[in-house]
Amino acid sequence: MKKIVNNPENVVDEMLEGIEAAHSHTLKRLPDSNVLVRHEAPVIGKVGLVSGGGSGHEPAHAGFVGENMLDAAVAGEVFTSPTPDQILKAIKAVDSGNGVLLIVKNYSGDVMNFDMAAEMAEAEGIQTEQVIVKDDTAVTEEEDRRGVAGTIFVHKIVGTAVEEGLNLKEAVELARHTAGNVRSMGVSIKPSIVPASGKPGFILEADEMEIGTGIHGEPGMERKPLKEANRIAEELLETVLDDLGITAGEEVAVMTNGQGSTPLMELYIVHRKVAQLLEEKKIHLKHSMVGEYMTSLEMAGCSITVLRLDQTLEPYLL
Amino acid sequence: MKKIVNNPENVVDEMLEGIEAAHSHTLKRLPDSNVLVRHEAPVIGKVGLVSGGGSGHEPAHAGFVGENMLDAAVAGEVFTSPTPDQILKAIKAVDSGNGVLLIVKNYSGDVMNFDMAAEMAEAEGIQTEQVIVKDDTAVTEEEDRRGVAGTIFVHKIVGTAVEEGLNLKEAVELARHTAGNVRSMGVSIKPSIVPASGKPGFILEADEMEIGTGIHGEPGMERKPLKEANRIAEELLETVLDDLGITAGEEVAVMTNGQGSTPLMELYIVHRKVAQLLEEKKIHLKHSMVGEYMTSLEMAGCSITVLRLDQTLEPYLL
Repeated sequence: MKKIVNNPENVVDEMLEGIEAAHSHTLKRLPDSNVLVRHEAPVIGKVGLVSGGGSGHEPAHAGFVGENMLDAAVAGEVFTSPTPDQILKAIKAVDSGNGVLLIVKNYSGDVMNFDMAAEMAEAEGIQTEQVIVKDDTAVTEEEDRRGVAGTIFVHKIVGTAVEEGLNLKEAVELARHTAGNVRSMGVSIKPSIVPASGKPGFILEADEMEIGTGIHGEPGMERKPLKEANRIAEELLETVLDDLGITAGEEVAVMTNGQGSTPLMELYIVHRKVAQLLEEKKIHLKHSMVGEYMTSLEMAGCSITVLRLDQTLEPYLL
Repeated sequence: MKKIVNNPENVVDEMLEGIEAAHSHTLKRLPDSNVLVRHEAPVIGKVGLVSGGGSGHEPAHAGFVGENMLDAAVAGEVFTSPTPDQILKAIKAVDSGNGVLLIVKNYSGDVMNFDMAAEMAEAEGIQTEQVIVKDDTAVTEEEDRRGVAGTIFVHKIVGTAVEEGLNLKEAVELARHTAGNVRSMGVSIKPSIVPASGKPGFILEADEMEIGTGIHGEPGMERKPLKEANRIAEELLETVLDDLGITAGEEVAVMTNGQGSTPLMELYIVHRKVAQLLEEKKIHLKHSMVGEYMTSLEMAGCSITVLRLDQTLEPYLL
């Protein structure tokens, strides 16, 4: 294991301290917690927005705390769900009496712990709703689909909408509508290494790639010889477009996301092909995001996320 | 070599196409060139700002084209200076009659080619000035110091200043003043691989790091056993502060920059220690940037850049 860390047991705590030190104008860490909260929280009159999950996916989710985004992010240990008590702290810190919406990636631990925190909050009189994001098309059964990079679109769209005054019920509808129209698919070419274990999450040969690997190194759909960027872009994009049933004339936003150690150069080479394919299909690429949004430590590879745009979503994104 | 590319010979061309496709609202590629230009260019009444250099350092420099930053970025082949004719195209595209300032990283090829382009532009009646950034304290001789991540501070400060109306002479002074107050120092723990060669630029053992490696894998100051993050932060920061002669009571901006494949988690762990050390020294950390700003393909490691703030610089940065 070759990492720039101190004691591997302390990576999350030290990372959160670093985030707070770097972005002290925007956010603060709640005492004795792994919760980062926007300074303005609770914003009077606004629905509170909370997300979170295991660490190791930075900038998700702490990097999305701020205006028009999240009010709080809760960090678990590396690739481990945050605990209900931590999530509850976040909920309490952001509620201004207008209720709190939890945006949850579909992992059993996350779903269970966010749900438990929501119940605890309700018991304390805080109105709480949850939306579960399941955008990973690599998993066939829709109920089992993981939440991956598409979650960022939900943060952004709902974050802007609640800032503009949507109430909790409307925010839930918008979040479900966004989550229902976003799909992702990834490929990995190098595994990540969890600091505490020091071992790679999976093994890939020098000429292999894995299509559909999860953001914690969960097995994908297919392991096969590494292809060129254009073929990778094609395979990922086709899968996602098919799943969403997007056809000529529609408008989309696309995120070409790096998993942690893929150079930006490679992401742009992939995005070039995505843009070309969309143009051939007469699907309008209205908004692009290229970079690292949902990572897996030093995993190499990328994912493509497509969001179908409509009159409801577009104003909040563009 | 394990990369998501097509023909390695085409990486720069395809990357530029990808950047143009992704950011078509902000910039365009000049025909038959490796020059990306802000749509508004030439901005009437404004000094034009051009930078560039070899590719492989993304987001530098194309990612910094836009309002309050560069008017154009010129991309060379990977780790190779752009040619004078390309730089000249950029100069001509951004000049609105108020002259053009070239921000050049101190590499002999870049310095020579930007200088040649400036002469050609002058011959065509375009007033052109150059500022050379030499912020890498890893090199002892000041004249030989390389331009690294500190260059981004020059882009940002001068970019904002010329947008606010500084003339060419004032912009040159401000750029020199910024460059004179910024220093960087890096450490590498894994090399990068140039796509066309397919071979690592240098070799490091599993437990080794190299202090002071250049952004093209140039040999550093010292190769030694990998230390923990806190010791690395200390060594890099002390070197830079010493070189700048910064003392208690002063104000600084700090960029903790990833070289391409270092997880954001590790950068924040380093930044945490930087913030702690500055606080101990009673040096005020006014502005932090943590992320990938000046990379070296998939090199792993980080650099710390310190900018001494004063009343001249602060308003343009914060």
